[in-house]
Amino acid sequence: MPIVNIKVTPPGVSKEQKMELIAGVTKLLQDVLNKNPAQTFVVIEEVETDNWGAGGEQVTEIFKRSK
Amino acid sequence: MPIVNIKVTPPGVSKEQKMELIAGVTKLLQDVLNKNPAQTFVVIEEVETDNWGAGGEQVTEIFKRSK
Amino acid sequence: MPIVNIKVTPPGVSKEQKMELIAGVTKLLQDVLNKNPAQTFVVIEEVETDNWGAGGEQVTEIFKRSK
Amino acid sequence: MPIVNIKVTPPGVSKEQKMELIAGVTKLLQDVLNKNPAQTFVVIEEVETDNWGAGGEQVTEIFKRSK
Amino acid sequence: MPIVNIKVTPPGVSKEQKMELIAGVTKLLQDVLNKNPAQTFVVIEEVETDNWGAGGEQVTEIFKRSK
Amino acid sequence: MPIVNIKVTPPGVSKEQKMELIAGVTKLLQDVLNKNPAQTFVVIEEVETDNWGAGGEQVTEIFKRSK
Repeated sequence: MPIVNIKVTPPGVSKEQKMELIAGVTKLLQDVLNKNPAQTFVVIEEVETDNWGAGGEQVTEIFKRSK
Repeated sequence: MPIVNIKVTPPGVSKEQKMELIAGVTKLLQDVLNKNPAQTFVVIEEVETDNWGAGGEQVTEIFKRSK
Repeated sequence: MPIVNIKVTPPGVSKEQKMELIAGVTKLLQDVLNKNPAQTFVVIEEVETDNWGAGGEQVTEIFKRSK
Repeated sequence: MPIVNIKVTPPGVSKEQKMELIAGVTKLLQDVLNKNPAQTFVVIEEVETDNWGAGGEQVTEIFKRSK
Repeated sequence: MPIVNIKVTPPGVSKEQKMELIAGVTKLLQDVLNKNPAQTFVVIEEVETDNWGAGGEQVTEIFKRSK
Repeated sequence: MPIVNIKVTPPGVSKEQKMELIAGVTKLLQDVLNKNPAQTFVVIEEVETDNWGAGGEQVTEIFKRSK
């Protein structure tokens, strides 16, 4: 009966990629912990780069430099 | 001093329904645990069906089949 | 397909009170949003008063004064 | 290796204010717990006032009255 | 730069199973979204069955019946 | 009316350090966003190193190597 929450920054995650994340993490919990897939909930949250900080600065700025 | 987080999928939750959820859960915590309503915070998050997985697939697909 | 997370401070929440919270919030989501109880997950987290802050101080200190 | 999640209601938080929050909380964790800033993640979530409850009612209503 | 939170009920998750979950979900995010493993944080939370509700009742009771 | 959640790994966070985190983050939100300290909730969660992953492995292992 697991609940999984996945927070990611853009660039955009396509519908197909979300599908793969949901299927993949549900299978992982079945393989490792024998959890029933029907009782596994997965929630994906896309967080704007302005709202995500790492190393004390906005990911927006980190991404600019890494281009 | 409770914090309650409610995550739901669409279809859309109206302003009135949110009001009922907030009032209801605050009263529940007062009734069961004697918590002060003034110190109860409730946050409602609406999660797109593409971003919610159950049984290893997107709720978008589950909803399509159930129609 | 809701997920509800309830964070509370002690004093201790008994097994029966947890049961009432779970039943109550599940019924609320059914009444207000017509959500299927079988698909409603509720997670209760008990947070020590040292780890909870309000008004810039630990709840431990607030509770001491209010006695 | 801290993860910090900050939920706030509007009025709008500017990009500069988010930057200050990220820098400030990262520095706080370094000062108090000697945490490596490079390993500190901060996520800011802006929650609509309809979706936030306090004292059993929507913040939307509380804000209306306080004007 | 993903953050993954995995909530599970007991029976106990061993150190090796946690390791597999962490490795597996980190690889999944690399495979599907090309996320840098070094920047992927995973947090596992084990929730007592008294504190988890499904279908309006405690998982403790559900587990008793299913034995 | 902010809610702040801080997740950290051990080594142990003392009561005084928690107090400093709570006071510091509450003041930060007042300084940057003019938020009322009385309406700021802070929750600190201490996560065992076995339950925290970074770079695809348990922090327990990372800490061993860095000694």
